Amino acid sequence: MDDKALMASLEETLGGGNPLHGGDFLRTWDHPVNTLRAVADTARALKAVYGAGGSCKIFDSGLAVSIFRDQSTRTRFSFASAANLLGLVPSDLDEGKSQIAHGETVRETANMISFMTETIGIRDDMFIGEGHKYMAEVAEAVDEGHREGVLAQRPSVINLQCDEDHPTQSMADLLHLQATFGSLEALRGKKLAMTWAYSPSYGKPLSVPQGIIALMTRFGMDVTLAHPEGYGLLPDTIDVCQRHAKESGGSFTQVHDMGEAFRDADIVYPKSWAPFQVMEERTKLLRGGRGDEVAALEQDALAANAKHRSWETTEELMAATRGGEALYMHCLPADITGVSCEEGEVAASVFERYRLRTYHEASWKPLVIAAMMLLTRCEKPLEVLANLASRGVARRPA
Amino acid sequence: MDDKALMASLEETLGGGNPLHGGDFLRTWDHPVNTLRAVADTARALKAVYGAGGSCKIFDSGLAVSIFRDQSTRTRFSFASAANLLGLVPSDLDEGKSQIAHGETVRETANMISFMTETIGIRDDMFIGEGHKYMAEVAEAVDEGHREGVLAQRPSVINLQCDEDHPTQSMADLLHLQATFGSLEALRGKKLAMTWAYSPSYGKPLSVPQGIIALMTRFGMDVTLAHPEGYGLLPDTIDVCQRHAKESGGSFTQVHDMGEAFRDADIVYPKSWAPFQVMEERTKLLRGGRGDEVAALEQDALAANAKHRSWETTEELMAATRGGEALYMHCLPADITGVSCEEGEVAASVFERYRLRTYHEASWKPLVIAAMMLLTRCEKPLEVLANLASRGVARRPA
Amino acid sequence: MDDKALMASLEETLGGGNPLHGGDFLRTWDHPVNTLRAVADTARALKAVYGAGGSCKIFDSGLAVSIFRDQSTRTRFSFASAANLLGLVPSDLDEGKSQIAHGETVRETANMISFMTETIGIRDDMFIGEGHKYMAEVAEAVDEGHREGVLAQRPSVINLQCDEDHPTQSMADLLHLQATFGSLEALRGKKLAMTWAYSPSYGKPLSVPQGIIALMTRFGMDVTLAHPEGYGLLPDTIDVCQRHAKESGGSFTQVHDMGEAFRDADIVYPKSWAPFQVMEERTKLLRGGRGDEVAALEQDALAANAKHRSWETTEELMAATRGGEALYMHCLPADITGVSCEEGEVAASVFERYRLRTYHEASWKPLVIAAMMLLTRCEKPLEVLANLASRGVARRPA
Repeated sequence: MDDKALMASLEETLGGGNPLHGGDFLRTWDHPVNTLRAVADTARALKAVYGAGGSCKIFDSGLAVSIFRDQSTRTRFSFASAANLLGLVPSDLDEGKSQIAHGETVRETANMISFMTETIGIRDDMFIGEGHKYMAEVAEAVDEGHREGVLAQRPSVINLQCDEDHPTQSMADLLHLQATFGSLEALRGKKLAMTWAYSPSYGKPLSVPQGIIALMTRFGMDVTLAHPEGYGLLPDTIDVCQRHAKESGGSFTQVHDMGEAFRDADIVYPKSWAPFQVMEERTKLLRGGRGDEVAALEQDALAANAKHRSWETTEELMAATRGGEALYMHCLPADITGVSCEEGEVAASVFERYRLRTYHEASWKPLVIAAMMLLTRCEKPLEVLANLASRGVARRPA
Repeated sequence: MDDKALMASLEETLGGGNPLHGGDFLRTWDHPVNTLRAVADTARALKAVYGAGGSCKIFDSGLAVSIFRDQSTRTRFSFASAANLLGLVPSDLDEGKSQIAHGETVRETANMISFMTETIGIRDDMFIGEGHKYMAEVAEAVDEGHREGVLAQRPSVINLQCDEDHPTQSMADLLHLQATFGSLEALRGKKLAMTWAYSPSYGKPLSVPQGIIALMTRFGMDVTLAHPEGYGLLPDTIDVCQRHAKESGGSFTQVHDMGEAFRDADIVYPKSWAPFQVMEERTKLLRGGRGDEVAALEQDALAANAKHRSWETTEELMAATRGGEALYMHCLPADITGVSCEEGEVAASVFERYRLRTYHEASWKPLVIAAMMLLTRCEKPLEVLANLASRGVARRPA
Repeated sequence: MDDKALMASLEETLGGGNPLHGGDFLRTWDHPVNTLRAVADTARALKAVYGAGGSCKIFDSGLAVSIFRDQSTRTRFSFASAANLLGLVPSDLDEGKSQIAHGETVRETANMISFMTETIGIRDDMFIGEGHKYMAEVAEAVDEGHREGVLAQRPSVINLQCDEDHPTQSMADLLHLQATFGSLEALRGKKLAMTWAYSPSYGKPLSVPQGIIALMTRFGMDVTLAHPEGYGLLPDTIDVCQRHAKESGGSFTQVHDMGEAFRDADIVYPKSWAPFQVMEERTKLLRGGRGDEVAALEQDALAANAKHRSWETTEELMAATRGGEALYMHCLPADITGVSCEEGEVAASVFERYRLRTYHEASWKPLVIAAMMLLTRCEKPLEVLANLASRGVARRPA
């Protein structure tokens, strides 16, 4: 798709307005499909300018505040890259890990960090029932602050991973699929297997698989979710997927067999996650001041995990996919058997064959975050992007 | 006051020059009242440009280095926001907490962090007799560095809270009073009660109450300082306040009764702090390598604190203020009874009524810091501000 | 040398091209002398623009990522200053200390932090056989990433100190010598004594003395390396120095007597370092999971150190240098007897006499790093520098 076609597509999906302007991006399912297409188109438009050596700087000044409630190298750099790309300066609020703050503290802090802030990126994915709630509280607090004249402008809130969704990851994955298969339309009828995989580590968040199945069912894909018994995702998300599949003309299937999911799949996304019941129990223990019982819970969870060592992405499983050539996807880092662990999510030879493609997949994330920043902050994104493409400002001298 | 009147006021207070240019901002009482008025006017001029969506960027490049010798979220963000507003990039020197370094180390480090630095913000408030001294040492070191050709320019030093004063807080508070009562002139004759309040935590710095009483006595206010026996502030500051009150035609009174301080007050500022004798003893113990005795000292101090639980800002006390409607102020975060602690500085219903006003109060801090940066770095602030107001550069595209 | 002469010199050393463009700066001995001269000339050209109040901003946007594998205040600020000077925003990757990561992790991480990155500065100096290897791996990874279309541009890798070399330090030292003696040509025949000195601390990296002797032997100097028995540097570096001295018409001598090294020296560089055999042993222990044996190794090393307390830079030793006025150099911070330790590398009176000169020495480091960034990123540095000098953009308003 050339630049003109891209701008025409964006014009169509925006429908003469910009539904994200002044708002937030918390979960993909909060937005109509056209808004998601607009995010994708904006990311691609930024990539085109950047790839040609051009400047995407649209902000004169302003902070992009990040709040990471657990460690993150990749997302931190994606956020800093996106901020810098657009001219914002990243600033990190380090609250201390594992803190579940609500109420007055959130309301106050949200305002205190927002006086000269354009956007706030939050990662809070460790506690079921908490992450999304916290982000919504921050959004409400800056609403009030702006309404009451405390803040000259209302920063947008961008979800960098919560307990329910990981929209910057799933949107990056969607762009990777679009680039791989040629268009979003080409995804219709493709079989995507989102499957659990074994990992020796415990407690990986559920938001990646949740985000993937909730998003991909909106594009007419045949999505199969596979996991061992006891590793189910949040029931609400399953409902969302059923509805999405119906609306988009795709399908959503659940199985408990990795091989069945891989059979004839066009795309496979094998990744470990924790059972949500365990995560819920963990949240309860920590909230009730019973942190000393968490270790025992983790031991049980690891022991349960260990029964499913066979859920590994092997060459044999890959061979059973469509033409033996399904696209392997991963949000990285993967647990690679014999490389990063003894037994893990994926065989070394499989991973190595797709390694660079997973890097390409990841390369969309800063662009997706930048697109969300731009769309939530600029009223007229079409004009902004057209100006970026035409003004011809280079990022550096020759 | 419109923009023209504001610029006229600034012109008058600057008196055709800029006494802060090339210098530092360490304590409000180091400067004549007109210089403080110039800081206030500059902060308001920046707020006007920012509030209209305009860019306040005046630096092309340059670092704004911060040194935080104890933890701080709010001040850290205020500093980063101010730096970003003006076009500087914040860079934090993390020396490790509670380190009392002097002499060669300070002299050397001050130069090593200043090669491309416009301003250095320092917070060092934990040790009586140390914070201001350290900042003065840094100022002397960059003086020497610049004089001897090591530094192409001499960065300014801005006090983000020391053991004696907290000028960015007190100046923000002054601007809040100016906005609330209409003008600095309107503050004349107003009764301000700076009073100790109970908190279950120990060792809050003295610099907030010190800064408030030393500043507000300069504007003709009737300042009453109230605290239990044994919670006195530094004797030198008390002398300063007496002198200020005399010079400005206001008054300065000390009482040991919260109710007496609140009676007919126009403004109340109830806040906990540690007795300076305890802080001095603590400094001595830490300096003498007797850190193991600090815990016992803290226990004693907490036990002493606990005798004064009745020093809480209740509805009853508020009702006794002028018309029952005194302005409640706090530097945040407050210890709110039943919200952030069991018993604290202020009743929940009182705090909630003034909550948004305390946010407004806090919103001046980044602007005050930016004003100090601008005035210490730019020779002709009037021209700089007039240009910001007239050039019409937006912070972001529509 | 005036600006015109400087640009003429740069034109000559660059030879009509720019051998650093698109590449890295890992070790001075990877590059011909003319390339090193070009780095020096570029640093001086930047200093001239900066010293006149001008802007050196050439990047519109872009990240400058730093990876510090051990603590560093000075180098961190030098890197942030250099980045800011050119318009890049510094972003730090905190991997946790003392981690020896290789292979897949390095390959992946290098790409994940590079999507919008212009340059990566790395400090990794604690493990013999590791630091340079790690940097080369990062360089290879971004090569692959760019070749395969993952990265729109290939960031440069700049060595901020490895196990073998410390090129930003040694180049800053060269510029200090050039400024002190008038020209690089004037260094020919000067005697430089790089000597070990006693320090009560253990395990200082070898890369400073290695970098100094490997670089200074290229400019026709008579370089003497002095250290107690058992404190030898890496054999490969010694070979490099022999070759360099031969090629440049200088000399390279090794002695085990501090007094002999100081005699008639024009320049003395007395500094502590660890024996490389101890560092090698330490690396082996840590790699083999025998971290508990490191403490014993350190005790032995400290005991060995203590036998050489007489290796201190005294007034007596200084008096034996050329005219009693050799230039004393140090990379800072120095262990100063009676100031920063009981017995150390240098007598207090000697250090104080040269203190400001060591600050001047250090002031070149941000400029050297900026020069390396500029030369590795810009194809036509002559045009870029000429434009900076002529465009007359001030860093801030008057």
